[in-house]
Amino acid sequence: MKTAGIISVGTEIMFGKIDDTNSTYICRYLKDKGIKVKFRLSVDDNINDMVSAIEHISSVNLVILTGGLGPTDDDITREALSKYLDKKLIFNEEQYQKIISLFKILNRPMPESNRKQAELIDGAEFLTNNFGTAPGMIYRSTADNQKSEKVFVLLPGPPRENQPMIKDYLAPKLKNFGLIQGCIYTKVYRLYNVGESFVAELFKPFKEDVEIGYYFTASSWCEIHLSRYVENESLIKDLSPVFEKAEKIFKDAGVFFTENKDLSLLLLELLEKKGLTVSFAESITGGNISGEFVKNPGASKVFLGGVVSYSNETKKSILGVKHQTLDKHGAVSEEVVKEMAYGLKKITGANIAVSVSGIAGPDGATKDKPVGLVYFGFLFGDKFYSKKELITGARDRIMNRVVNMAFVEILKTLNLGG
Amino acid sequence: MKTAGIISVGTEIMFGKIDDTNSTYICRYLKDKGIKVKFRLSVDDNINDMVSAIEHISSVNLVILTGGLGPTDDDITREALSKYLDKKLIFNEEQYQKIISLFKILNRPMPESNRKQAELIDGAEFLTNNFGTAPGMIYRSTADNQKSEKVFVLLPGPPRENQPMIKDYLAPKLKNFGLIQGCIYTKVYRLYNVGESFVAELFKPFKEDVEIGYYFTASSWCEIHLSRYVENESLIKDLSPVFEKAEKIFKDAGVFFTENKDLSLLLLELLEKKGLTVSFAESITGGNISGEFVKNPGASKVFLGGVVSYSNETKKSILGVKHQTLDKHGAVSEEVVKEMAYGLKKITGANIAVSVSGIAGPDGATKDKPVGLVYFGFLFGDKFYSKKELITGARDRIMNRVVNMAFVEILKTLNLGG
Repeated sequence: MKTAGIISVGTEIMFGKIDDTNSTYICRYLKDKGIKVKFRLSVDDNINDMVSAIEHISSVNLVILTGGLGPTDDDITREALSKYLDKKLIFNEEQYQKIISLFKILNRPMPESNRKQAELIDGAEFLTNNFGTAPGMIYRSTADNQKSEKVFVLLPGPPRENQPMIKDYLAPKLKNFGLIQGCIYTKVYRLYNVGESFVAELFKPFKEDVEIGYYFTASSWCEIHLSRYVENESLIKDLSPVFEKAEKIFKDAGVFFTENKDLSLLLLELLEKKGLTVSFAESITGGNISGEFVKNPGASKVFLGGVVSYSNETKKSILGVKHQTLDKHGAVSEEVVKEMAYGLKKITGANIAVSVSGIAGPDGATKDKPVGLVYFGFLFGDKFYSKKELITGARDRIMNRVVNMAFVEILKTLNLGG
Repeated sequence: MKTAGIISVGTEIMFGKIDDTNSTYICRYLKDKGIKVKFRLSVDDNINDMVSAIEHISSVNLVILTGGLGPTDDDITREALSKYLDKKLIFNEEQYQKIISLFKILNRPMPESNRKQAELIDGAEFLTNNFGTAPGMIYRSTADNQKSEKVFVLLPGPPRENQPMIKDYLAPKLKNFGLIQGCIYTKVYRLYNVGESFVAELFKPFKEDVEIGYYFTASSWCEIHLSRYVENESLIKDLSPVFEKAEKIFKDAGVFFTENKDLSLLLLELLEKKGLTVSFAESITGGNISGEFVKNPGASKVFLGGVVSYSNETKKSILGVKHQTLDKHGAVSEEVVKEMAYGLKKITGANIAVSVSGIAGPDGATKDKPVGLVYFGFLFGDKFYSKKELITGARDRIMNRVVNMAFVEILKTLNLGG
């Protein structure tokens, strides 16, 4: 297996101002292409530290440095690699003209300092940057008695510049050099309303030859990654039976799962297909279900609006919930979410009217109604039903889960997902 | 200045499954304590890679390794440091009893594999873990002819275990050893509705002896960090004149700024103090203003609820916006946000009624009304005024900025912030 090492350069990383997300991205990218990352290092913009970092990882086949290709004096990654390789930096007129035209397009004067971005290590090639002035660079050292053939790469620091560069310009080179052969194909599922130990048990009967990873996200779903190395992309279709077996396991366990897409987007697409509209009356979530839904462009095609009935007064004045119902059953009750849903339907006319009321905490619990207690009301056409859930955790987790549960329930009733 | 190096251990990092947030946290923590991090490295759970990583960074005063202290076979960071130091691992009965009692509290059987978490490198001390079974470790090598005095630290991988350990147990040790002396004090401000070049210009007349950092967040505010090293905490108060000068600069430039706290929380606190209530009628933001507000515990004390009037129909049916007004001026207009605000006030009775209508894109623009055009309506008591803004960027950025602008405007009118 081919190996790689990544060196990220910059004071912002060493000061802990930012996470080194570039290395994470490159690790994942190379792993998916079958290259093993053996080292990740970060150093300041300091030539000696950089050269010593390259020396430290020089046993690998591919060395990638990110950051420090800008125009200012402390951008010296180019110089560091040139020093390590003992190869001169040579001014490249063609690249210089490219940078000049970029500034012309931006209608900004070009500072003299940008001139050094046109310098190329002797024997290297530029990697095109379509989103900034700093080109990348790739250098392939030939094998000699002491060292095997090795590839060195320089990438600019900003992710929106280096990510397209990796895909469009670096990857084809690495294929040419034989460093990338096959790839790791990963299928991603999202599972909702499951716990960690449940997921671990779920896969015990699954003996397929794929790597299984699962990750719980901050938005309270579990991501399942099923990965396998394939020698070329045409072989991916042979993996279908494996994924079918996984989906059967989810179904048999009664777990709701989807492809790797937001619930709100899946719902938007489904409602559009079916020509249905939806609206929400939110108490506990205070607008977060609607807010999540409208993050998707085109939401207005199926979403009419709704009500944030955060107080008893607004439940009465906007939704027409009866005073007596609130008095007798309390705001967090089946009876109230029922009147909320019917009231919402009346004022929005939506095909699907959904209501939620609950206690997000940390305050607000009573003897009978603990933090995390939530009632949902679902009015599909003229059919109403309610659901009661008890969700553990802090305020933000409870809210996230209520939002997800509302979407999951609508999708289930409309027959989408497992 | 004392120096440090951090080595994070684990397959999840090398596969790019997770960002190495532990190192970021430790970098920031040490920087704030006046220690310079010279190296960040990540390696797999492999003894040789770990030992060679320690060797590579052995010029620093403080070496910290995180991760790989668990009970399983691939948790071998303890062994790697023991090998590097050439010191034996010695079973510690007292620590073993602690682990046993932890399992008793959790009411779970203790696997035999956890026994190795009670092993201590000869000459080291344990660092207490109050949130897991893996204790940390600290070892201080004495100076000899070849090497200066050096401190080695092992920390468990999970942030909720290692972060309290760093603060409560590691920091006091580092103070004792003279590695931590003073600290860097950082004052953080948030600036709203400013661009990068504006902020850069802003600080040109500011010649105080502090380090200035500014960062644009995903939620569309700019964070200003003003930092200075102080020899002890009692000297922080001497920095007040510096911060006053910075605040004067913000004020003179007419920039809205706050302490480092969410706008929605500042608003909640202010409304509570003043005994006022608020409600929102949202079109373009579709519930995200309300949703942001209710993320704060206690929101119900001042927030009555509101309306997500995402369609013309709900603007009419819930808020009583006139058919003719919509026809004549369109939904994105001063006239419509005015009727929305008055309609909202009527049904919620809130002291402050705020309405927004705009075009979030990518679709929905007309010849006269581009993507990013937003109208705000503010009804304070019986005084109404409107605002018109044109916001550039993608859908999510436009929405974030509208949410911030709504909060900023209310805070400004209530006289909070700069």
